Amino acid sequence: MTDTNQAFAELKRGAEEILLEDELLEKLKSGKPLKIKAGFDPTAPDLHLGHTVLINKMRQFQQLGHEVIFLIGDFTGMIGDPTGKNVTRKPLTEADVLANAETYKQQVFKILDPAKTRVEFNSTWMEKLGSAGMLKLAARQTVARMMERDDFKKRYKEGQSIAIHEFMYPLVQGWDSVALESDVELGGTDQKFNLLMGRELQKSEGQRPQTVLMMPLLEGLDGIQKMSKSLGNYIGITDTPSDMFGKIMSISDVLMWRYYDLLSFRPIAEIEAFQQQVADGANPRDIKIELAKEIIARFHSQADADAAHQEFINRFQKGAMPTDIEEKTINTIDGELALANLLKEAGLVGSTSDAMRMVKQGAVKIDGEKVADAKQACVAGSTAIYQVGKRKFAKVTLV
Amino acid sequence: MTDTNQAFAELKRGAEEILLEDELLEKLKSGKPLKIKAGFDPTAPDLHLGHTVLINKMRQFQQLGHEVIFLIGDFTGMIGDPTGKNVTRKPLTEADVLANAETYKQQVFKILDPAKTRVEFNSTWMEKLGSAGMLKLAARQTVARMMERDDFKKRYKEGQSIAIHEFMYPLVQGWDSVALESDVELGGTDQKFNLLMGRELQKSEGQRPQTVLMMPLLEGLDGIQKMSKSLGNYIGITDTPSDMFGKIMSISDVLMWRYYDLLSFRPIAEIEAFQQQVADGANPRDIKIELAKEIIARFHSQADADAAHQEFINRFQKGAMPTDIEEKTINTIDGELALANLLKEAGLVGSTSDAMRMVKQGAVKIDGEKVADAKQACVAGSTAIYQVGKRKFAKVTLV
Repeated sequence: MTDTNQAFAELKRGAEEILLEDELLEKLKSGKPLKIKAGFDPTAPDLHLGHTVLINKMRQFQQLGHEVIFLIGDFTGMIGDPTGKNVTRKPLTEADVLANAETYKQQVFKILDPAKTRVEFNSTWMEKLGSAGMLKLAARQTVARMMERDDFKKRYKEGQSIAIHEFMYPLVQGWDSVALESDVELGGTDQKFNLLMGRELQKSEGQRPQTVLMMPLLEGLDGIQKMSKSLGNYIGITDTPSDMFGKIMSISDVLMWRYYDLLSFRPIAEIEAFQQQVADGANPRDIKIELAKEIIARFHSQADADAAHQEFINRFQKGAMPTDIEEKTINTIDGELALANLLKEAGLVGSTSDAMRMVKQGAVKIDGEKVADAKQACVAGSTAIYQVGKRKFAKVTLV
Repeated sequence: MTDTNQAFAELKRGAEEILLEDELLEKLKSGKPLKIKAGFDPTAPDLHLGHTVLINKMRQFQQLGHEVIFLIGDFTGMIGDPTGKNVTRKPLTEADVLANAETYKQQVFKILDPAKTRVEFNSTWMEKLGSAGMLKLAARQTVARMMERDDFKKRYKEGQSIAIHEFMYPLVQGWDSVALESDVELGGTDQKFNLLMGRELQKSEGQRPQTVLMMPLLEGLDGIQKMSKSLGNYIGITDTPSDMFGKIMSISDVLMWRYYDLLSFRPIAEIEAFQQQVADGANPRDIKIELAKEIIARFHSQADADAAHQEFINRFQKGAMPTDIEEKTINTIDGELALANLLKEAGLVGSTSDAMRMVKQGAVKIDGEKVADAKQACVAGSTAIYQVGKRKFAKVTLV
C-alpha cells in the first residue's frame, strides 16, 4: 500500500464526501505523515458497528503511517446542558470523563493500534483560552453564518429555543483543529458544518486548512434506517459471536456489499474478487459467512468466529433447510406486514388463520428461530428465511 | 432629605423609566444602604454634559447614603473588536484601561464624592469565570431572546453581520450585577435590554433582582437632537467658563427647564420657585444665568462662574444691546435656513443682497459674535440674538 494512488483509492472507499479531494491527494503525495483528527463525545460509549465506520477509516490512515488522533471532547462534556432542558445531558465530572475514556479505548483499540494512537482531551487547550479567549473565539463567526447550519435554521424557524452556547460548539470543534494543526478531520456527514469551521479557523490562523473526510451513517440490519440502538437494528461490538453471526447472515445481499465497503478490512481487490465469484454463480450466503467471521474475529477471536460458523451450519445447513429455497419479494403496507399475512402471501399457508394455528403449534420459524406471535410485524427491507413445518421454506425480502 | 417619599421623588426626577418603581420604593423604605451600579466603557473619556445626567443621578443616591459603584467595563474593552471590522474599537491594553480610568475619575469626581465612590473593574470576576464559565454563561440565554433586542433584530433583518461575541456582551453586563449583587442599576434608555439581563441573571442566581433606572439621553443645544460631539451641539465639561456661559445662555427657555431637571443639583422645590417667578413676570434670562453659573462652578469654580457672568454683562448688557429685543419664530426649509434669508425674514435687512453686504462689512453678529459667511446655515431648533449694525436686533427661534 505504498503507492499513493492505491492509498488514495482505499481512503476514498466508502467516503460520502471529501473536501477537497485534490488537497488530500496533494497532502498524501508530500510523503509526510499527516495528522488525522477524529473527535468523540465523552459520554459513556457502547459502540455498535455503525460507530466503527469512522474508526475503520482512522485505522486505514494509521496503517498508511499517518498520525491518528483520538480526540475526546471533554471540555464541552464537562459542561453538559446547563439549561437543564435536556435531562439526558448532565455535566460529566473529570472522573466520569476519564472512566469513559478508558471504556472507549478498550473498544476502539480492537480496531486501532494503541501504540500508534495519540489520545487527546480538548480541555487541555480550551481551558487555557480563558474567558477573554472564549470571547475572542466567539467574535470569529457571525450569527448569520451559524444560522446556515440546517438544524439551527430549522429550530429557529420553528420557534424552538437555541441556547447561545450551542453556537460555541462548532467554534470549539474548529479551534481543536487549530490547536492540533490537523491535516485531515474525519466525521459523519451530519458534522459537515462543524468540520468546515475547522477549515475556516485554520485559514484565519495562517494554517493550511484540514481536508474534511465525511463517512456515511451506516444502515442498520433493515438496510433502510441508520443503525441505532433505539431502532433495534444494530450489531453491538460486545454482542455474542452467535448473535453477530445470525444478524449478519440476516442482511440482504445488497447490504452485504455495503458492509464489505464500510466494515471489512479486506482490500478493495479482494472484495472485487468476491463480487466476481457471485457473478459467476457462487452463493452470496458463503460470502456473507466470510464477512460474519471477519467481524467476529475482530471483536472476539478467530476461534469464536469458527465456532459461530459451525453452530450456524449445525442449525441451518445440517438441518432440514434445503439448499435451493425459493426467493420472493413481497410488498409491505406502510413499511410493515404482519407475519400471518406474510406467510399467506408467500404461499407457505393457505390462510391467515392457518398461519395463526401453525404459529400456536410452534411450527413457524424465522431464520431457524421459533416464532410465538403470528401478528408480529415484519419490516420492509428485511430478508429472512421463513419456514412452516418441516418442508415449507421461502426466502422473503420485504419491500 | 431623610424622608423616603421626598428622596423617592428626587430619585425619580428626570428618569425616563423605572423598572420596577414599587420595588425601588420598597428598597428605599428598608433603610439599608443600597448598592447602586453604573457601568462605563473604558475607552478614553472626554465627557460632555449629556454624560453627566447619569453621574448626577449617582450623586443623588450617594448623597442619600447609598453605596455608589463606578464600574469600568474593562473585560470587554480589553478585547475590543477582534473582527477588525470596526477600526475605532481597537483592543485596549491593561495600561490603557488604567490610564483611562484615571482620566475618568478626574472628571466624574467633579460630581461624585471620591471618598464615597467604589470603583470596580469587571475583569476582576469575569476573568475568574474561565472558558467553561463563559460557556455556562452563554447557555443562560437563547438566540431568540437576543434577537428581541431592537438593534440585533434590525441588523439581522437587514443582513448586517452580528458577531457571536456581541450576544455575550449583555450577558457579561448582567453577570456584573450578579457579581456585585447590585440593588439598582442606572443606565441610558438605549441600555434597557442589557439592564434587564441583569435582573434575569440575578433572579436565576436566587438574588433579589436589581431595580433598573433609565435616564434619558440629554438634548443638545438645539433642543432637538441628543447632545453629541459629532453634532457639535454639546457643552464639554472641560469647556472654558466663557464658552459654557455663552452656550447655556443660547438655549431656549423650554430646554432650560429640561436642563434644570437633569443637570442642576438644586432641589425640586427651588426649581419650582424659579418657575413661579417666571410665571410672575421674571425674565427667564436671569434664571438661565443661575443655571450657567451653577454648571461653571461645578466644573471650574465659583470665581470662574462670577467672572463669566461679568464678561457676559459687559459684552451684551452694558453694550448697545437693548433689554427689550423682539422675539420672532421663523420657519426653516428642511430644517435649515441660510443666514442672509433669516436676516431678511426677521426684517433686519431689506434684501438678501443687503444681508451679504452687511456681513462683508463685519456688521452682522450672532449672540455678539461677528459672522463671516452670509450663506451659513442656521438650523431648526436654535434660538439666538441676531444683530445688524448697532441698532437692529431680533431674537429668532428657528422651527
